[in-house]
Amino acid sequence: MKEEFYIVQESEHNSLVSKAYQKRGFTESESNDAARFCSFASTHGVRTHNALKAIHLDELFGSGNNGCTPGAEIEVIEKNFEASEIWNCNKKLGQSVAYQAIERCIELADKYGVGQVSVDNAFHYLWGGGYVLDAANRGYIAYTNCTAGLAEVVPFMGKHPTLGTNPHSWGFPTTDSIGFPIVIDWATSVVAMGRVQQLKREGQPLPKNAAVDENGDPTTDPEKAAYLVPFGAHKGYGMALINEILASFIGGSLPTLRSREIPEGEKRTPSFYFQVIHPDAVSSEAFACGRNQQENVRAVIEDIKGHGNENIFLPGQDFAEAAARTKEAGGLLFSAAEIAEFNHLAEQISANPWDIQALPKFDK
Amino acid sequence: MKEEFYIVQESEHNSLVSKAYQKRGFTESESNDAARFCSFASTHGVRTHNALKAIHLDELFGSGNNGCTPGAEIEVIEKNFEASEIWNCNKKLGQSVAYQAIERCIELADKYGVGQVSVDNAFHYLWGGGYVLDAANRGYIAYTNCTAGLAEVVPFMGKHPTLGTNPHSWGFPTTDSIGFPIVIDWATSVVAMGRVQQLKREGQPLPKNAAVDENGDPTTDPEKAAYLVPFGAHKGYGMALINEILASFIGGSLPTLRSREIPEGEKRTPSFYFQVIHPDAVSSEAFACGRNQQENVRAVIEDIKGHGNENIFLPGQDFAEAAARTKEAGGLLFSAAEIAEFNHLAEQISANPWDIQALPKFDK
Repeated sequence: MKEEFYIVQESEHNSLVSKAYQKRGFTESESNDAARFCSFASTHGVRTHNALKAIHLDELFGSGNNGCTPGAEIEVIEKNFEASEIWNCNKKLGQSVAYQAIERCIELADKYGVGQVSVDNAFHYLWGGGYVLDAANRGYIAYTNCTAGLAEVVPFMGKHPTLGTNPHSWGFPTTDSIGFPIVIDWATSVVAMGRVQQLKREGQPLPKNAAVDENGDPTTDPEKAAYLVPFGAHKGYGMALINEILASFIGGSLPTLRSREIPEGEKRTPSFYFQVIHPDAVSSEAFACGRNQQENVRAVIEDIKGHGNENIFLPGQDFAEAAARTKEAGGLLFSAAEIAEFNHLAEQISANPWDIQALPKFDK
Repeated sequence: MKEEFYIVQESEHNSLVSKAYQKRGFTESESNDAARFCSFASTHGVRTHNALKAIHLDELFGSGNNGCTPGAEIEVIEKNFEASEIWNCNKKLGQSVAYQAIERCIELADKYGVGQVSVDNAFHYLWGGGYVLDAANRGYIAYTNCTAGLAEVVPFMGKHPTLGTNPHSWGFPTTDSIGFPIVIDWATSVVAMGRVQQLKREGQPLPKNAAVDENGDPTTDPEKAAYLVPFGAHKGYGMALINEILASFIGGSLPTLRSREIPEGEKRTPSFYFQVIHPDAVSSEAFACGRNQQENVRAVIEDIKGHGNENIFLPGQDFAEAAARTKEAGGLLFSAAEIAEFNHLAEQISANPWDIQALPKFDK
């Protein structure tokens, strides 16, 4: 049966989400950042990382559990590297930090061609792909990685989970070439723990080589699956390791302590890394056949998608297609189950629920 | 049967390799760069990318086939981005270009915290891992990628090879922490075409999901394998795409034309991208338990390798172990077959062959 979606006005959504964050102690500015970013995720069809997930995360690991401090101020750590900044964000809300970090990276990239912001004492920023997509929409090449909240992933050839699902996200400003930004954005585990739990509920087997049991032995049984496995054997393991190593240079501590009870003197916070590159700062200006940069990017992508490959998927295409649906609907799209959850949230904070009977359906 | 290795003095090796390059028309400086880098690869056990491979590549795609121009000069393209440079290297020898690019990135990183050099009109640089390992040995975080010579890889869900094997290489200065630099360095295909050819000679099947036949259908039969497949499904495909997209911003043209016959006005050259980060420029200086940065990196790696994971492999460990063997041997290690090939090369350029009877064996 086709899932039905209801159309919720962005302003309604943002008002509810901002109110929920303010109720949790966040400032108006932080709460608006959180709402804006959740709306951006929902606009792009990212149902695993919407406002419901964001608030759930804040409860489990954030302000509900001393992992995030409402109203915290970002301290810039003084260094003499002109294209780089290091921030102690003092466990400030991840969405506010990430928005500001990308903004600062863009300013640095405008001057230096490349700019980086490294963030210590971070809290979850929800969806790394969103920040690089935002930067790519504005014409920049952007990259971010972070250490995930929990160590759930077993290193290649290992037995025990000592790595996070550690995502990487790259965005490229290809809108003038192909109509949308290329966004390469994924965790370094084959699947997320949420997927394991979903398959467990549904009584379905896991994909092969996605999880191991408590002894570190491979299993496709979601009842036995205890830990996750990196994608692509030693190659995905290397990608997961990059985030941990970079975090260890920034200020992050032991992965197995992250978001958990810690001994005196230890740290349990994730780290963020952001980088933006100005596309003019990598351009030789000497493109074949007199093409300009965007025409050249288009020609290369058309070549990759040619020769019988017309039906291949370009990363970021799914986000663009979802954004087009959102635009056509004239509002954010949520299922009946999601709306019920939003209404449960509204009830908790004494806000007005959404009347599902009155919400228009989107049938395309 | 255990393979036997003979010890060749580095000076002997470099003298022969430099002479071979000079015979091919390269300047003394280029030839010495080529010899030094091949020696560095052999020191670190990289048998797939040694001097024999380098000269073979130069014959097939380089100065032997108008893909590389001996004595070419690098032109710096003037831009106003202070931490970035763009070079037209005019098909200069890849090893010389890469050595200079990493050097320039290090200077930029010393001042700006991060520095990048993008290179248009490039020729093969042999082994990206070597340059980032070199930078990591000198205390820097380094990254490089390039577009591979030929489009041999079929995009995820595609039929036709329109991507290179497009490697990525990251190096981290972890020697003070764990005794060697972490180096994450691999192609984005499951296997290289050389591996397919080797298994074909040996009559052995390919790993699953590593290759497709001429129709784009999966095969493990090396006789039928025509094209390669990215590692890790859509995730490895995304990694391969990064190199093509970045190259398209730099100045690279259609992947399917690379290193092949091209129509008038087209380009057939790969592109390089280099980036170096100063580790102080990402450091919050606020490490747990009063640790300094290198102590913190060590603590994180020990945590990852703890808890039953003591036997896991750290990327770069294989290079470090090979370098230790080379040091113990007091010279570069080559098999009898490799020495025969070096002697064939010596014969071609009228140099003295190595007397295998007189070479000491390394038996450890």
